[in-house]
Amino acid sequence: MPASKKIQTSIEKSSWIRKMFEEGAKRKAEFGAENVSDFSLGNPNLEPPTRFKQILGDLVGDPAPGRHSYMPNAGFVETRKAVADYLNTFNLPKFTSDEIVMTVGAGGALNVVLKTILNPGEEVIIPKPYFVEYNFYLDNHQGIPKIVPTKKDFSLDCDAIEDAITEKTRAVLINSPNNPTGKVYKENELIELAEVLSRHSNKHGQPIFLISDEPYRKIVYDGIVVPSIFNAYKESFVVTSFSKDLSLPGERIGYAAVNPDISDKNMIYEGMVLCNRILGFVNAPAFMQRAVAHLLEESVDISIYQKKRDMLCDALVSFGYDLVKPEGAFYLFPGTPVEDDVTFVTALQEKNILTVPGSGFGGPGHFRISYCVTDEVIERALPGFESIMKRYQKR
Amino acid sequence: MPASKKIQTSIEKSSWIRKMFEEGAKRKAEFGAENVSDFSLGNPNLEPPTRFKQILGDLVGDPAPGRHSYMPNAGFVETRKAVADYLNTFNLPKFTSDEIVMTVGAGGALNVVLKTILNPGEEVIIPKPYFVEYNFYLDNHQGIPKIVPTKKDFSLDCDAIEDAITEKTRAVLINSPNNPTGKVYKENELIELAEVLSRHSNKHGQPIFLISDEPYRKIVYDGIVVPSIFNAYKESFVVTSFSKDLSLPGERIGYAAVNPDISDKNMIYEGMVLCNRILGFVNAPAFMQRAVAHLLEESVDISIYQKKRDMLCDALVSFGYDLVKPEGAFYLFPGTPVEDDVTFVTALQEKNILTVPGSGFGGPGHFRISYCVTDEVIERALPGFESIMKRYQKR
Repeated sequence: MPASKKIQTSIEKSSWIRKMFEEGAKRKAEFGAENVSDFSLGNPNLEPPTRFKQILGDLVGDPAPGRHSYMPNAGFVETRKAVADYLNTFNLPKFTSDEIVMTVGAGGALNVVLKTILNPGEEVIIPKPYFVEYNFYLDNHQGIPKIVPTKKDFSLDCDAIEDAITEKTRAVLINSPNNPTGKVYKENELIELAEVLSRHSNKHGQPIFLISDEPYRKIVYDGIVVPSIFNAYKESFVVTSFSKDLSLPGERIGYAAVNPDISDKNMIYEGMVLCNRILGFVNAPAFMQRAVAHLLEESVDISIYQKKRDMLCDALVSFGYDLVKPEGAFYLFPGTPVEDDVTFVTALQEKNILTVPGSGFGGPGHFRISYCVTDEVIERALPGFESIMKRYQKR
Repeated sequence: MPASKKIQTSIEKSSWIRKMFEEGAKRKAEFGAENVSDFSLGNPNLEPPTRFKQILGDLVGDPAPGRHSYMPNAGFVETRKAVADYLNTFNLPKFTSDEIVMTVGAGGALNVVLKTILNPGEEVIIPKPYFVEYNFYLDNHQGIPKIVPTKKDFSLDCDAIEDAITEKTRAVLINSPNNPTGKVYKENELIELAEVLSRHSNKHGQPIFLISDEPYRKIVYDGIVVPSIFNAYKESFVVTSFSKDLSLPGERIGYAAVNPDISDKNMIYEGMVLCNRILGFVNAPAFMQRAVAHLLEESVDISIYQKKRDMLCDALVSFGYDLVKPEGAFYLFPGTPVEDDVTFVTALQEKNILTVPGSGFGGPGHFRISYCVTDEVIERALPGFESIMKRYQKR
């Protein structure tokens, strides 16, 4: 056995995704990348804001010594303070630098939080469709995912969540704005969820935590504001990154924020800092920590994504696609006109359109379109979306 | 239970280290940082090479789009190719970009390799004294450390390693040049170790892997060259970083290299790339990946560390300290004149000298001095080292 049993299985299981990926690569090689519409990845097509480059230039010119040295495992205190100050501009519990851990992206942040709280075999409830990478993140810390449905419009089904609670439930993990649906959970949903969790925390004699993964918080449309779990529920964590709103996914910079009012805050925070260290992250990359401290108010131009969403939604609806118009993020999760979403996604590939089957997100009968691509890619794909839909409508 | 049981215990266990750290901070506050000699951390005092800043400037000025986007989880192919080309300048098996995974430092690289190979409960043999963070890294993947002695001069004791091999042994993990001893393992030691591992791999019917952690490879003295495990043993991995030789520990950039001749290489490599992704690293920081591709031949001026080593060793030997002169890295690991190393380290604190007890490295009866500090710090500390030694010699 060369790799561990688990890794070997994971490699084998991911083989159909790989096959689709390889099919896409083959098509790009055969027809030219410019003739393939790749909607398969959440890799933002917009460049980082202009101010980002200015800040990098300033940092390179900074003659102070030790700029690339170790700092506290939680991150530079200046950066953590900047994040806390930024959070304090919203109507939230008051943050200090000692409630913030700078991390290697939101993926790093989520692993830090999960390792801090999870005992082996404890369960985390996740509403589906969901970002399936969470399964790996839970398994890293011997946690068990309990996947529960959402409502028809992808809003939270708090009854389903409550039904899934057992004595092993340690946390609920939500993602808003959601990947893959673009759904934003409303304040009343969060309040209802908090009420369920409070009730069961009391029964358990220990908190059931709420973790919100929010890298798309700034990417919202039509004036929507993403309500904060911090106001709804005190036993809570937010994990996030600058990957999507500043278009820096390759730089791996994000943070975890713990609710200032969480029970046993000192131990929880100390645990998070320890986990950031011992998981092998050690600390978030120094240079980008310094950069983002100056960019907390910034984002790419969200209206560009909104136009793409509108162009795509209007066209797909006119072709007969069944979809819930996303309120945020840059994903669309339409229903497939045929039960087997892999079949449908394969049919789209014939038209050189690359998307991801909903099954890959615990949402079969759907497919995900990442529209963080150029307008040309979208325009070029529309006839293909139309003709494949027509093929199935005829049946 | 706010944090997991394991994390709660880890926080409690680390409390004496914390106490020492706090004592140091207290002394800095009381006497002024400039009057405290802090030898407790491996945080290089030298600035990165001049060319590093030039390269950063070039990268900031690069107008190409997508410079901060996702890339393959293994890292930019250009960077991996540069690393492979660099390795190919040595007399090693021939590397390609597909034997290199760019990582979040050596800590990230080691976690990637361990997760790739370890089934729960499998054992990893580690010669002591050793970097105790390895215990956490093993535990992250449910591995079990088997700590074995080295010889009096800190060279490998291959009989001790062989005695520790069981049917659960999955790997041996070495660190050369060594933290905390500065020892470099010689070619004959590696050949002897390889012979032991080959023999037991055959008995097991599967390889026992050899992992070498080598962030100090370029930091060697008196013309010593660190022999490579890649030539000695094919079932092998090297993990390393640019933290120490380029003085970039805060940037979290390093790599894992798998032996081109390892059994089942494709699955192993695919496993490593998957683990880099699913551990939450996703990929090594993009900006620093681009930077180090141009800096593989560079390092800080090693002769500066050699002078510090000599100044410190000469003085400590003249004061009566028992020490093995380090061949590399920037640590000194002298014996303490009293059995309890914590007592001795506490005595040094009276003189505002901060060091780490050998017990913290599985090497009781010793203490670690990190001499990656200014000459002034060393000079200021010498009288204190002398007077504390005298106190114990009198007894």
